[in-house]
Amino acid sequence: MDFASDNGGPVHPSVFEALKAANDGYAMGYGNDPLTAEVTARIRNLFEAPEAAVYFVGLGTAGNVLALSTLVQPFETIFCTPMSHINVDECNAPELYTGGAKLTLVPGTDVMTPEALRTSIEAEGNRGVHGPQRGAVSITNVTEEGNVYTLEQIQALCDVAKDYDLPVHLDGARFANACVALGCTPADMTWKRGVDVAVFGGTKNGLMGVEAVVFFDPKKAWEFELRRKRGAQLYSKHRYLAAQMQAYLERDLWWDMAAQANATGSSLRAGLELAGFEVVNDSQANIVFFRATGAQHRALKDAGAIYHIYGAEPQGDEGRAIGRLVCDWSMTQETVDRFLSLLEGLR
Amino acid sequence: MDFASDNGGPVHPSVFEALKAANDGYAMGYGNDPLTAEVTARIRNLFEAPEAAVYFVGLGTAGNVLALSTLVQPFETIFCTPMSHINVDECNAPELYTGGAKLTLVPGTDVMTPEALRTSIEAEGNRGVHGPQRGAVSITNVTEEGNVYTLEQIQALCDVAKDYDLPVHLDGARFANACVALGCTPADMTWKRGVDVAVFGGTKNGLMGVEAVVFFDPKKAWEFELRRKRGAQLYSKHRYLAAQMQAYLERDLWWDMAAQANATGSSLRAGLELAGFEVVNDSQANIVFFRATGAQHRALKDAGAIYHIYGAEPQGDEGRAIGRLVCDWSMTQETVDRFLSLLEGLR
Amino acid sequence: MDFASDNGGPVHPSVFEALKAANDGYAMGYGNDPLTAEVTARIRNLFEAPEAAVYFVGLGTAGNVLALSTLVQPFETIFCTPMSHINVDECNAPELYTGGAKLTLVPGTDVMTPEALRTSIEAEGNRGVHGPQRGAVSITNVTEEGNVYTLEQIQALCDVAKDYDLPVHLDGARFANACVALGCTPADMTWKRGVDVAVFGGTKNGLMGVEAVVFFDPKKAWEFELRRKRGAQLYSKHRYLAAQMQAYLERDLWWDMAAQANATGSSLRAGLELAGFEVVNDSQANIVFFRATGAQHRALKDAGAIYHIYGAEPQGDEGRAIGRLVCDWSMTQETVDRFLSLLEGLR
Amino acid sequence: MDFASDNGGPVHPSVFEALKAANDGYAMGYGNDPLTAEVTARIRNLFEAPEAAVYFVGLGTAGNVLALSTLVQPFETIFCTPMSHINVDECNAPELYTGGAKLTLVPGTDVMTPEALRTSIEAEGNRGVHGPQRGAVSITNVTEEGNVYTLEQIQALCDVAKDYDLPVHLDGARFANACVALGCTPADMTWKRGVDVAVFGGTKNGLMGVEAVVFFDPKKAWEFELRRKRGAQLYSKHRYLAAQMQAYLERDLWWDMAAQANATGSSLRAGLELAGFEVVNDSQANIVFFRATGAQHRALKDAGAIYHIYGAEPQGDEGRAIGRLVCDWSMTQETVDRFLSLLEGLR
Repeated sequence: MDFASDNGGPVHPSVFEALKAANDGYAMGYGNDPLTAEVTARIRNLFEAPEAAVYFVGLGTAGNVLALSTLVQPFETIFCTPMSHINVDECNAPELYTGGAKLTLVPGTDVMTPEALRTSIEAEGNRGVHGPQRGAVSITNVTEEGNVYTLEQIQALCDVAKDYDLPVHLDGARFANACVALGCTPADMTWKRGVDVAVFGGTKNGLMGVEAVVFFDPKKAWEFELRRKRGAQLYSKHRYLAAQMQAYLERDLWWDMAAQANATGSSLRAGLELAGFEVVNDSQANIVFFRATGAQHRALKDAGAIYHIYGAEPQGDEGRAIGRLVCDWSMTQETVDRFLSLLEGLR
Repeated sequence: MDFASDNGGPVHPSVFEALKAANDGYAMGYGNDPLTAEVTARIRNLFEAPEAAVYFVGLGTAGNVLALSTLVQPFETIFCTPMSHINVDECNAPELYTGGAKLTLVPGTDVMTPEALRTSIEAEGNRGVHGPQRGAVSITNVTEEGNVYTLEQIQALCDVAKDYDLPVHLDGARFANACVALGCTPADMTWKRGVDVAVFGGTKNGLMGVEAVVFFDPKKAWEFELRRKRGAQLYSKHRYLAAQMQAYLERDLWWDMAAQANATGSSLRAGLELAGFEVVNDSQANIVFFRATGAQHRALKDAGAIYHIYGAEPQGDEGRAIGRLVCDWSMTQETVDRFLSLLEGLR
Repeated sequence: MDFASDNGGPVHPSVFEALKAANDGYAMGYGNDPLTAEVTARIRNLFEAPEAAVYFVGLGTAGNVLALSTLVQPFETIFCTPMSHINVDECNAPELYTGGAKLTLVPGTDVMTPEALRTSIEAEGNRGVHGPQRGAVSITNVTEEGNVYTLEQIQALCDVAKDYDLPVHLDGARFANACVALGCTPADMTWKRGVDVAVFGGTKNGLMGVEAVVFFDPKKAWEFELRRKRGAQLYSKHRYLAAQMQAYLERDLWWDMAAQANATGSSLRAGLELAGFEVVNDSQANIVFFRATGAQHRALKDAGAIYHIYGAEPQGDEGRAIGRLVCDWSMTQETVDRFLSLLEGLR
Repeated sequence: MDFASDNGGPVHPSVFEALKAANDGYAMGYGNDPLTAEVTARIRNLFEAPEAAVYFVGLGTAGNVLALSTLVQPFETIFCTPMSHINVDECNAPELYTGGAKLTLVPGTDVMTPEALRTSIEAEGNRGVHGPQRGAVSITNVTEEGNVYTLEQIQALCDVAKDYDLPVHLDGARFANACVALGCTPADMTWKRGVDVAVFGGTKNGLMGVEAVVFFDPKKAWEFELRRKRGAQLYSKHRYLAAQMQAYLERDLWWDMAAQANATGSSLRAGLELAGFEVVNDSQANIVFFRATGAQHRALKDAGAIYHIYGAEPQGDEGRAIGRLVCDWSMTQETVDRFLSLLEGLR
């Protein structure tokens, strides 16, 4: 019963098949191999974006910060939420890669509203040369706290950004889970809304470690290539990144894996609510935050459930703490049921 | 007949076996899995360095620049050769990761002499606060041009560095090839000579993409971990890095693969010399630089040989250009023989 | 009636006398002149800190960011208020000089409380390698909004910092105004409370452009010198910085100028309150924030008063906006009286 | 007899007159004062460049690195000589300000030839994404070793740069001395030759500390302003920079001071040669390098001459070392004669 993270589960077996299939003889390095060309073309097709520039990197943080570093100058700022991965979980990687740009935390926690974004942008614009300049907007779907922006919400955020001529970056570490939750295409969730650069994540959804960075306008393509190399993120044996992504696209594996993760997540949420537990987030995807007493958390963990507890863990029956449950593609309904069955004894 | 690079060949099949074996259920992310602990312990054993701190990264450039960024301050300089990978093939990644440290190019081209190193260090030390301060020495074995430093040469370079209290970094993208060429242990080539940090490369020697960074003195270990995260180089699904390295260490696969690469390289060199071609480098490992006319190069390429030509390619029979032949673990004697048989018709 | 800023007024005439006195023959450059030695010694005396390392720079921002860059690593964060100069008025200079460290905005606006500081520090410490590490605490006295921390408040903030072994930086652009307001010595306000590095500002208090950076523990002195040079902040004709500071120290000119600024500030505050206007800040020094209608602000400006209005300027009698009045050493009681006399007609 | 540096002498008295004249009442800060507007307009006139963007900074290094940071990307390289100030005397400031761009040292020492520049540019262009990209060319006139590029030489270097579409930066710490040596106008030496950005230095030529950065094409003006602020180089009390430059321009003071420095420099050179000493550099301006024995240097120093000796100082009569003599605007013929009279006793 491991709900600790969607990077803890196994890699989908078809990925290894694709890796072995790619392991045939010599291939040009650094992305100049035919498989990389083929798979990037397929991603352009998937996104209905024939002009897009598509690049592979091995980690989500790398995708985020390389994308952002081509969008902002070092004297600018990036508008994001306090809970965003680029703020709390990248140990100043955005600052490193952008050469010292700032992150402006849009008031709120995990979900950005258009109103708050507009207020933040306005506030950053009245100090002339003295303050950082407005640089870019970064949003995440599925968010860190498991919320899913609707297409209308993404559109509204992009509209605010466009009012100030700011580019929009989408952190898509859980891109597939968001698509499945929304029942939409990748194009629906990105350029059709106004997103300029999206990270199409694979690592949290069954791959070993590949993310595709998709620039819908390729004018920054060459700069990205240079920044990727300078960031020590250009893999020599590039075909093995491409192969993973090839497996991901084959027969919509990316969708099916996310669908399984979301379905088990939904089942968890429903079961928790049925058992009378408060589910904190508006969970439409694969992450469920729920509140329980310290004793309840302890009982669940003693019974073999593995997950993170946020904030200070309460000691007795009094306080309540939030637990985070994450399902990946390999989560089974059986495991979920086993977890839910534990809840009965906790009331 | 692909001699273009040792990153062009296939991955050793046992790597896929190890990956699949590691792909069992859940595992903690970010290097907190048992396999990572096991494999780093094996590397400490291999290096006879029980105190060493060992980390995995996915690319050689990442290993180099992260190691260097823990050794030097941004107002310091790194002594290296003009041909070193950190100078010519990392697109300013050292400057990014160190926060703007400088590279001081020790006079020469590919092989650093102790005398030239001392002269360079002396020259950087007489401008007080005005010039960059002496930071670290970086050497490479096997060098970019296929030369192998002897243990005595490494010792002599480290001795000079120690005279100025400078740490020594070893770029070991072809570490195994150097060990085989020298018939020495990893410890012989590193800390026993005075090397402080070594990159134990796997990517160019049959792995998909893993390098181990080995700090013989662990005092910088935590700083390295933070810099690795900040550099967007901390893999979440870390067990798949460990698994590759596990296969590498198993029954000395790393040695055997390098031995095959070196043996085919030696055969190439011997065959070229026998056929009357000039071999430019003191090739003891897996890279051979040889001089031929433009017509000869063209004939070889027309016959299916793939390799890089350095500098301007001469047009006719007159000029001569240097070709670089690289053998990896998968190079066969048969392929070498086929290449050498082409030489007969070129005289 | 210019209340726009304390950097808008004239330089004290004795500064020019000191400059001319220093302009005699040749002097060693880069701070190696006898006058620099003499004046830094006097600052050590003034701070009762015989071991301190004292350096001059030409701008307050330079003092702040150079000091901070020696205190924090690029993977760390600096705790400061949202209104702090380093956050809102330095256009990412802290990020540049620290190599990409982050600023963590302690909840509140202008004045940091020990409780909020502790909460922020705690919150930054629970993500292991994933988030930025705790680096330093930066406070400002007088604050940007004209508030003055008491000695007890400074002590309490330093105590929190020390609980986490974090160094404390004091932005002292208005150091003298704070000392006068508190009736304390420079030592009282700094190392006796736990401050590790202070900027002893001169530019806003009658000098042309000099700030002294005072490290109470000199162990970072040489690093500071290198970072100052690397930051393009090491003046060759250094005696002219020293001369300004010499005039500043002579017969406590620094105190007297700040006393005049504070006295006229107090007079402004008293007059505004007497006339029924709301004074927003707890003004003990030379800056007064007051609320008035758009019509009132317009009338004052039409009558020749010069000052900044914060936020959107209201158009009619309805809304109210905050005006900022700043007094420097050259502000006269006569000018204050003239301004206050305008208030009578505004009721 | 102080020939140590042209930053060691006094400031011209008229500078203090201008400072006091500017010290009248309040003025807008940060360059928004009328005097700054007036003086920058005069510089545009002086350079016959009505469209130019002109900015003041307080140090030559700041002018150089801010200018370069607007010209190059962090993944690019700057072509300069090994002896250039940006390479040897700025402690990695260019690397800091550019975010980690590299300096490519054009073979030679102090004077760059068009042929060597072209060779260096060509060599940096053949590694695709792997190496740094070509960024900008930086030249210095007068050079660090006291040589003066002719207008034809500057033209030839700019022509090479233009062949590769690279901008040209001119380090003009001794701009005036070069103009006087060449008998040319500022326009002749800059944009008419192809220079894109010039630093018009004042600090080494009688001012306290001001340099004007002149962008002949103003398209980077706003970026420069942001980078200047971010670099902690935007002075609040800006009128005192402008006043110094005002004095500099008044009745061609800048020319007259440089003319005096060059004249005394020429007299030194002539006297040294007459006395049989070897003058090493092609000194047309205010710096003379001459070779003498250790005993001769010691005798000169014992007699009160102050200057730097380069390299290891020889101990007896055998070895010879190079001494550097620098004259500034305040150097008198009498002092030169006194120095030259010492030479007689040394033969």
